[in-house]
Amino acid sequence: MSISKIKTPIVILNFKTYLESSGEDALELAKLLESVSIESGISMVAASQATDIYRINQETDIPILAQHIDPIAPGEHTGSNLMEVMIESGISGTLLNHSEQRMKLADIQNVVESAKRRNITSVVCTNNIETSVASATFNPEFVAVEPPELIGSGIPVSQAEPEVVKGTVNRVKDINKKTEVLCGAGISNGDDMAVAMDLGASGVLLASGIILADNPKEALLDLVSKI
Amino acid sequence: MSISKIKTPIVILNFKTYLESSGEDALELAKLLESVSIESGISMVAASQATDIYRINQETDIPILAQHIDPIAPGEHTGSNLMEVMIESGISGTLLNHSEQRMKLADIQNVVESAKRRNITSVVCTNNIETSVASATFNPEFVAVEPPELIGSGIPVSQAEPEVVKGTVNRVKDINKKTEVLCGAGISNGDDMAVAMDLGASGVLLASGIILADNPKEALLDLVSKI
Amino acid sequence: MSISKIKTPIVILNFKTYLESSGEDALELAKLLESVSIESGISMVAASQATDIYRINQETDIPILAQHIDPIAPGEHTGSNLMEVMIESGISGTLLNHSEQRMKLADIQNVVESAKRRNITSVVCTNNIETSVASATFNPEFVAVEPPELIGSGIPVSQAEPEVVKGTVNRVKDINKKTEVLCGAGISNGDDMAVAMDLGASGVLLASGIILADNPKEALLDLVSKI
Amino acid sequence: MSISKIKTPIVILNFKTYLESSGEDALELAKLLESVSIESGISMVAASQATDIYRINQETDIPILAQHIDPIAPGEHTGSNLMEVMIESGISGTLLNHSEQRMKLADIQNVVESAKRRNITSVVCTNNIETSVASATFNPEFVAVEPPELIGSGIPVSQAEPEVVKGTVNRVKDINKKTEVLCGAGISNGDDMAVAMDLGASGVLLASGIILADNPKEALLDLVSKI
Repeated sequence: MSISKIKTPIVILNFKTYLESSGEDALELAKLLESVSIESGISMVAASQATDIYRINQETDIPILAQHIDPIAPGEHTGSNLMEVMIESGISGTLLNHSEQRMKLADIQNVVESAKRRNITSVVCTNNIETSVASATFNPEFVAVEPPELIGSGIPVSQAEPEVVKGTVNRVKDINKKTEVLCGAGISNGDDMAVAMDLGASGVLLASGIILADNPKEALLDLVSKI
Repeated sequence: MSISKIKTPIVILNFKTYLESSGEDALELAKLLESVSIESGISMVAASQATDIYRINQETDIPILAQHIDPIAPGEHTGSNLMEVMIESGISGTLLNHSEQRMKLADIQNVVESAKRRNITSVVCTNNIETSVASATFNPEFVAVEPPELIGSGIPVSQAEPEVVKGTVNRVKDINKKTEVLCGAGISNGDDMAVAMDLGASGVLLASGIILADNPKEALLDLVSKI
Repeated sequence: MSISKIKTPIVILNFKTYLESSGEDALELAKLLESVSIESGISMVAASQATDIYRINQETDIPILAQHIDPIAPGEHTGSNLMEVMIESGISGTLLNHSEQRMKLADIQNVVESAKRRNITSVVCTNNIETSVASATFNPEFVAVEPPELIGSGIPVSQAEPEVVKGTVNRVKDINKKTEVLCGAGISNGDDMAVAMDLGASGVLLASGIILADNPKEALLDLVSKI
Repeated sequence: MSISKIKTPIVILNFKTYLESSGEDALELAKLLESVSIESGISMVAASQATDIYRINQETDIPILAQHIDPIAPGEHTGSNLMEVMIESGISGTLLNHSEQRMKLADIQNVVESAKRRNITSVVCTNNIETSVASATFNPEFVAVEPPELIGSGIPVSQAEPEVVKGTVNRVKDINKKTEVLCGAGISNGDDMAVAMDLGASGVLLASGIILADNPKEALLDLVSKI
């Protein structure tokens, strides 16, 4: 399922490599995401580990992002993430340059171009306004700005550094009206997401706030309760 | 299916990221490997991309290796290869330190240790006698020596540099009698494999010689025809 | 000596790690560069190895660039290139993101910002028009576009891919009128440089064409003979 | 000045990239190290930043180590640390694989071999007994074991994890009688060093405990006061 024309606001859940979002549990979480998406009417997307993409795609209709794709063509590479096989396995797009998987400038551009040619969505993660602007020059569908000091902190970027979200939205629009801005880092509840939307974001990227919640379903429903 | 007590000689086919060994074609190739293994009585193993592990495990009984595992514990990592989810998805072991995915010394030791604790097999790839000896001190089940200049060359290591294979076998045995030596690089036919076994190797690691062959089944049957 | 207000056109000679431009020979080459710069009236700059910066600065007045600076603050780092000590040792600026030392997006931005705060010049190397535009959003003094397939080829970018130079100049100016464009890859003689200037470049970045020339002095004089 | 036949015990001071041990201050610290070495009769060595090697070598007789050397031959490399120019500038050897600059297995072996051919000393840093043993198979002059969790902690490895030091000494000797073991991490005073020597170490590798001390000279004198 394509997310290139997906309705915003959008919630991207980065499954990372938590056991709670791996293998059988990744599948359960993807199903939960799908049901809450239907129930709430808000677009939700699963960014799953490479190993789980095929399986989630077989058993759900949730749009899937890769967590990373390497800047390689098919051929002599061992242990790399190949775009072609991930598309065949069911991804609609990919995160790129996540703070836990930073990429070289030339490699980001290379993979965003490849993604465009194959009609899949690029979500380029960035650490501040300046790198968001630079990334936006490549025309990805989304830039997701996440100040690294707030990732996993429980302190929401939309409240701790609203000027980063607002500044990114404004300066990215100057470069390129088609790239939408997401925000991440510390986002976990409905207030955080509502503030993010008020600041001009088109959605959020989050992980532990939902995956490690006592009740992920309630956490997801709360997340989208105020928009 | 475990390969830790697998019968040698062994053939490990590195699927790399060729389109011919990705997705649906990876599954077909794994099935072929399985049938030739049964037909020939020689142990064969598929080292597949992360994305294809689950699927190959669901539809075949061929032992599967990951192509690479990252030195991480479950948790806050994006775009990494987690051992736990790969085991749940069906691997029996992993390649490590392939020439296309060289690893830091401390990371090789870390992953070999983790693999031991979880009873999966480590195949540490190396580039010469000296790094084979160093790797053998970690007690992996296999060391696979592949002179990088011969990889994908069509010139078999067992014939071009027999002293590397023989030297690796001898010096690894001095360190550690339980680690077996495989050889790779340029291996493609029955003569190459026969010479490798004569030099003391317990099997071979190969890729393009089979995957890109006009007739992979014939190529596999030929590979094991002289042992 | 500062190059931040240097007169263009400019010739940056990347000393790389050739023996011909290391140690004592680096010093001789820097002196040659200085004398040809005075003789020709064209600005010339030496991008030397870290080990040679202090020495070249002690014995010449040629402006010196580092070949790379790491995105670190002073402190607990071993084997890294620290901006502060390089400035104290005599650099006026630095190459960044050279094709032989590609950097992560966030790290390029980090070092360009640090360079600005300390009034040293950033020359961000790039591989195509798109990464040049992205780099220009950080407002470095120079972007040096070098198609990687032409580096060290002897085929000058200014003649083989003039549209890359022209396109970079035009699109960088749209982003930022203060960033000047250099071009590199395959540049070695007066014709190459003249064409580069005609295409809008403010100078050239080169290495083997001069350093490995039979007569580097003649090669340098020829380089600037047609502008 | 060569350290290959240096008298043990040995104190290696890693200058890292502290401002207190950079540029002019690096030179002062090297002179201090030299005078304390003469005064105490204990061998002392400076592991300085690349930028400061030439200068320290010009003005002192202290043996100098590089903090890192890249696995490259002279030629087309930008921003790398070339062994040849560092030797010409005055190093007697190099640290390798420091916890702040971990190296790939094949690269460690490559640089240790190159160092041997050029008669300079290799000090391979390691994180535990197992990687110490693996490194010792390359026959470097020294292995310096530093449990990463103790680096910069102020808690001395010789007291917190004596079994790591003792185990490394014993197991390295089994592999190779010529490789001597140093220990690092948290070492700062005379008691720490005395215990290290009692455990079989041939010396220590340290940094902040001396460099950031209120009085580095007193700290150095204290360090060697109980052996």
